Amino acid sequence: MTVISRRRLLGAGLGAVGAGAALGAVGAGAATVEQPGPAPGARAYPFRGTHQAGIVTPAQDRLHFAAFDVTTGSREELVTLLRAWTSAAERMTQGRSAGPAGPTEGDYDLPPDDTGEAIGLPASGLTITFGFGPTLFRDEDGRDRFGLADRRPAALEPLPHFPGDELDPARSGGDLCVQACADDPQVAVHAIRNLARMGFGTVSLRWSQLGFGRTSSTSTGQQTPRNLFGFKDGTMNVKAEEPDVLDDQIWVAPQDDPDAEWLAGGSYLVARRINMEIEVWDRQPLGRQEQVVGRTKAEGAPLSGGRESTQPDFTVTGSGGEPLMPPSSHVAVVHPDHNGGARMLRRGYNFVDGSNALGGMDAGLFFLAFVRDPRTGFIPVQQRMARHDALSEYLRSTGSALFAVPPGAARGEYVGQALFA
Amino acid sequence: MTVISRRRLLGAGLGAVGAGAALGAVGAGAATVEQPGPAPGARAYPFRGTHQAGIVTPAQDRLHFAAFDVTTGSREELVTLLRAWTSAAERMTQGRSAGPAGPTEGDYDLPPDDTGEAIGLPASGLTITFGFGPTLFRDEDGRDRFGLADRRPAALEPLPHFPGDELDPARSGGDLCVQACADDPQVAVHAIRNLARMGFGTVSLRWSQLGFGRTSSTSTGQQTPRNLFGFKDGTMNVKAEEPDVLDDQIWVAPQDDPDAEWLAGGSYLVARRINMEIEVWDRQPLGRQEQVVGRTKAEGAPLSGGRESTQPDFTVTGSGGEPLMPPSSHVAVVHPDHNGGARMLRRGYNFVDGSNALGGMDAGLFFLAFVRDPRTGFIPVQQRMARHDALSEYLRSTGSALFAVPPGAARGEYVGQALFA
Repeated sequence: MTVISRRRLLGAGLGAVGAGAALGAVGAGAATVEQPGPAPGARAYPFRGTHQAGIVTPAQDRLHFAAFDVTTGSREELVTLLRAWTSAAERMTQGRSAGPAGPTEGDYDLPPDDTGEAIGLPASGLTITFGFGPTLFRDEDGRDRFGLADRRPAALEPLPHFPGDELDPARSGGDLCVQACADDPQVAVHAIRNLARMGFGTVSLRWSQLGFGRTSSTSTGQQTPRNLFGFKDGTMNVKAEEPDVLDDQIWVAPQDDPDAEWLAGGSYLVARRINMEIEVWDRQPLGRQEQVVGRTKAEGAPLSGGRESTQPDFTVTGSGGEPLMPPSSHVAVVHPDHNGGARMLRRGYNFVDGSNALGGMDAGLFFLAFVRDPRTGFIPVQQRMARHDALSEYLRSTGSALFAVPPGAARGEYVGQALFA
Repeated sequence: MTVISRRRLLGAGLGAVGAGAALGAVGAGAATVEQPGPAPGARAYPFRGTHQAGIVTPAQDRLHFAAFDVTTGSREELVTLLRAWTSAAERMTQGRSAGPAGPTEGDYDLPPDDTGEAIGLPASGLTITFGFGPTLFRDEDGRDRFGLADRRPAALEPLPHFPGDELDPARSGGDLCVQACADDPQVAVHAIRNLARMGFGTVSLRWSQLGFGRTSSTSTGQQTPRNLFGFKDGTMNVKAEEPDVLDDQIWVAPQDDPDAEWLAGGSYLVARRINMEIEVWDRQPLGRQEQVVGRTKAEGAPLSGGRESTQPDFTVTGSGGEPLMPPSSHVAVVHPDHNGGARMLRRGYNFVDGSNALGGMDAGLFFLAFVRDPRTGFIPVQQRMARHDALSEYLRSTGSALFAVPPGAARGEYVGQALFA
């Protein structure tokens, strides 16, 4: 019978142009969505590096995010899984099968070590990013299951309750998380599904979320996308091209936490499932929508004037003396000037998960943000937003989780190895 | 302030190349997914025609499907909505805003007539296909709300219960359906969301389903995709290039039903949400998987030999005398030779809707199939499959609906106009 590996199909389908484009993309690290190159699917990002991929990587179009509970009590089994996940992630991000035998080349009497739905699909810019939740260090009953309690970062506490939270426990928390981003959703789903398959008996899927449209740019080469309120989102996002800001605001430094030096070069990932009341929003006048956001809907320019890239000016007033940027507007409330300079690297996605009981859509923003310290970089901003932001009237947070994201794995290492060393 | 229409952004972003590619795609009607042209997003299909678009149109990559309940008792309001939906569908499939004012160009004191999240996105091959459910003609209490009962097609009966059905009423049925397919999920979601917005007060969203990976080809120019079992799906699908088969098996003819001549040129759409037990499947040996499906996993060739396109031979036996194509294999059970020649035009999508209570994925196939008569084209095949197909062990149907899909709207008409004439 004919045996076709994913890698060979990739080679046959794309040829030298595809391979060249992939190398080019890795080097440049930036491609616009609107005018993709000849073979955008051939983009491949290295899994190993100083930092994990999937943070400053130019935000891909599609997401599959999963949170897992560890079901074994064995530290050794947990480490074995992290080794296996590292190997599989390295393979899949290069467009290869999850395991070395592949979906169809193995023993007929054994289950394949890859599930096969990505046969023939290129790497598609896949990144796989791993994180550790607070309960990995000390579970909800206070148990230190894996001997990690004294290495827990002080900032890795469950997030506090915020006004407006209507959290579903089945969409919150988790011992481990995996963020898979790709330009093809089938590739992102394949990645999560194969990691879950490999984890059978060691971890159990706690919740997962698909996202279909990125709502942030993480590179100056990308155009600003739109969220389900129809507005450009993430104009002021931290970008890959700002290394000083990344060091100051996103990457954990060795001196940040003496108990958690293993996290140096990593970050914290805040995940929030934010339902948007789009049916109510859609009945608001255009002018009201712009006042709530603080930007024009067409171009995304601040209401104080200029273009999308212009900094908002909170001092400019209108003919009646009122500020052109309403103090309760989203842009004003979350602006770094009003939050001690705090900035996040946002990487969220739009979602629609069917309908709700009111005959509307279960839709919104799956908010993902990387920060150096959630105690200063996220929690105060979220508290301000929940209390003062006019946009909050149209939002309900239905899921929430916080993870410590270890640094990238060096050659020969598994992801998070320093935590277990 | 700057006012930018979706159309102008489209023109600015794509220029003459984009426009040319769009016209070319409409003319050719077939492009492979693996090697898209220079601007695949620029593909635009006409909304009006003999048949509705979205049936034989080369299957796009992404789906948003919605079923609505009509909440008004007024036939006039229902017709008004169908007129408005027709106009909006025609606009959006050409890459324009849902309403003439657009997302940002209207009166600041009024809600926009487009929600805006598709600003700057091209048509992306969007098709919008409308259908009428059995309850539109006579509701569950037997009421003829809109004076349509005597025009109900005899074949438009709720589907019977099949073995293995575990139907969720909240994912089944509906008075109306809208299938939005596009190569960009944001464009498909935008279409459904704006139709739902326009229907506020007349219809209520009953259920909706996103699909991320097409599982069928509807044109010979497309490569066969893979479902979440990792196998190629839809190899023997009815294709746009088989006009005689389409007339025989897919399109309703004027003489089919004297009470429902309005449906001539239309079809019936069967929608089934089929959960796949992927965690169980992934633990089956490769050989067992191939015996269950009846095809090789690598190429999709029938186990009786040949290539993907080779017809299966149910008479070929192995060295032990057993048929190489197991009689219980999926291919054998659903083959037209064993079903009175019945063939469907399938147009399904893979879905993942988070996790299930067992720590697995809520994942599967959202099955969509168009048939000339469900009483001969679908129900007997599904009954055979539910009883005899080895694949059924790994499937659970959790949603089900049947719709009559009217013919295409001619210029000046609204979709389904002949039903109300």
